[in-house]
Amino acid sequence: MDASPAERTPDTVGSLGEVATLARILPHLPAGDSTLLGPGDDAAVVSAPDRRFVVTTDLMVHGPDFRLAWSRASDLAWRAAASNLSDVAAMGARPTALVVALAVPAETTVAFLEEFAATLRLACDTLAPGTGVVGGDMSVSPTMTIAITAFGDLEGRAPVRRDGAAVGDVVAAAGVLGRSHRGLARLFAEAVDDEGAPDARIADRLRASDPDVAWHLAPRPPVGDGVLAAEAGATSMLDLSDGLALDAGRVARASHVTLDLDGAALGGSPADVRNALAGGEDHTLLATFPAGTALPGSFRAIGRVVEASADGGVTLDGRALAAAGVGDASGWDPYRAWSGAAG
Amino acid sequence: MDASPAERTPDTVGSLGEVATLARILPHLPAGDSTLLGPGDDAAVVSAPDRRFVVTTDLMVHGPDFRLAWSRASDLAWRAAASNLSDVAAMGARPTALVVALAVPAETTVAFLEEFAATLRLACDTLAPGTGVVGGDMSVSPTMTIAITAFGDLEGRAPVRRDGAAVGDVVAAAGVLGRSHRGLARLFAEAVDDEGAPDARIADRLRASDPDVAWHLAPRPPVGDGVLAAEAGATSMLDLSDGLALDAGRVARASHVTLDLDGAALGGSPADVRNALAGGEDHTLLATFPAGTALPGSFRAIGRVVEASADGGVTLDGRALAAAGVGDASGWDPYRAWSGAAG
Repeated sequence: MDASPAERTPDTVGSLGEVATLARILPHLPAGDSTLLGPGDDAAVVSAPDRRFVVTTDLMVHGPDFRLAWSRASDLAWRAAASNLSDVAAMGARPTALVVALAVPAETTVAFLEEFAATLRLACDTLAPGTGVVGGDMSVSPTMTIAITAFGDLEGRAPVRRDGAAVGDVVAAAGVLGRSHRGLARLFAEAVDDEGAPDARIADRLRASDPDVAWHLAPRPPVGDGVLAAEAGATSMLDLSDGLALDAGRVARASHVTLDLDGAALGGSPADVRNALAGGEDHTLLATFPAGTALPGSFRAIGRVVEASADGGVTLDGRALAAAGVGDASGWDPYRAWSGAAG
Repeated sequence: MDASPAERTPDTVGSLGEVATLARILPHLPAGDSTLLGPGDDAAVVSAPDRRFVVTTDLMVHGPDFRLAWSRASDLAWRAAASNLSDVAAMGARPTALVVALAVPAETTVAFLEEFAATLRLACDTLAPGTGVVGGDMSVSPTMTIAITAFGDLEGRAPVRRDGAAVGDVVAAAGVLGRSHRGLARLFAEAVDDEGAPDARIADRLRASDPDVAWHLAPRPPVGDGVLAAEAGATSMLDLSDGLALDAGRVARASHVTLDLDGAALGGSPADVRNALAGGEDHTLLATFPAGTALPGSFRAIGRVVEASADGGVTLDGRALAAAGVGDASGWDPYRAWSGAAG
């Protein structure tokens, strides 16, 4: 007879070994509509109907990128899927498949990995239906690390790059601005114990009561709007992951223009505007469209493209960001910002 | 005036930041013949001429997978490229592109990463000419972690899977057997200091004097033989990464047959045979071909496919492995084998 669940030691990656752990995880993963050969061989085979595929890869490391006291397995899976699917969408492509490489401590439970896998499926089904997980790899590591690579199909369209914004275009955003940053700021300020260490119970309470916190832990980027933007003739597009100031500056630099943002459209108050400009990890789509385009999906206008300005690649209501009193455009650099505190 | 190089503190990932570090690395990477849009946007675009692509992903973690006292940046890049390119080859595909995700300690020098990138180019140019690095990601981590995802083109052929071996087929191997394992065993036995910690100077001496050690640190799999095998009609194929016993067992199980290996072809002596059977990380291609096939490239016969046997999926000269005195077929499991000593 088995012991009752409460008496059993939970299975861990270390106790079960690689083969048995993978056997437990694989049934939870989504098969996908583009999967010609899924996990189990040396490599997978994925459909690429228009003779090209879009590919992006993204790392999440325990410490700089997440705290296990705040993020559940389901949050990590959701964020990893969302950020990669959003990068595919930002090229104007339809996501088709993911591969997932996981390095986890040997004491990680198989239940944690099952929840991770099941949430990958849920995130794919929700954000980009038909996307499958076609393969992966696992290893042990003292530092939990998640590397996801995502693929997409351009369906015959040209990829929407960063360098096509033209003077006169409308600047538009699909998805929220600054919400992830607000949620993270609240976690840093409140979800810590008396010694300043991340606290899981406070984080759970905040998640339940504050949509910004819930959004930061499991963002819902408007993945489907990427294809809509490409079909509507977007001249440039990117995924907002490092804050509007930094990312809009990338479009400006690549396109040799200035993006003049509309303070009222960013929320109006200096605090709202600062938050939208500086806040990372929104996974909002930022795009430019020819003037007069009927903006598709959830896109709304937040500015316009003007001649390259001495005030910088990004201006606010025609003024340099510093002059407008909303700081500079330095954005977020994971290397410089990292405190080393993992939690 | 700049200080002389000897007086300068070397640039590190932490001191330089992500953007400047990437700017130093990117020029070293190979562009590739299949790259339609390379690094610098949200995602890359890669050519997939036959409307499918092959994809495999592989993690290398400091500790379980390598020791920095023994492996230089160039070794790590070479091994990471080789193991992924070999997985693509094992499907019968021609490698086209890689993406690279790196998590490194903040104190890692930019010079280390430049050497890593330059060796990726060299490995691609040597093992699979025309393969490009189309994108990647970087993060800081206390545990150096390398995640490479590789792509290939099937050129209209069916992928060569593990489940097609048929009774009567010849079992063949391209590349070395057991050499990586011999090299690693020598490093473990000799490249340690008096306290048992990995020693870089001894490892460098061994690398220069022992081809097995040099091979372990930077293996040269016969990547081009993958396409040749597919063209010659291989019925099954895989990349030998966990030892011949375990990997041949996978073909046997998937194909419902037994692979009977020829002891003489594995070196003859019990030590040679044991080493070939148990040694991991060879990145040799193991394939089966219909009897009478002219074996292509560097493939040579090492056995034949027989009816599934009560003696197991892999036998040696018609006998169970245990009965033949060469141990079992348990192979190598990175979870169970990991000591936690990183070095």
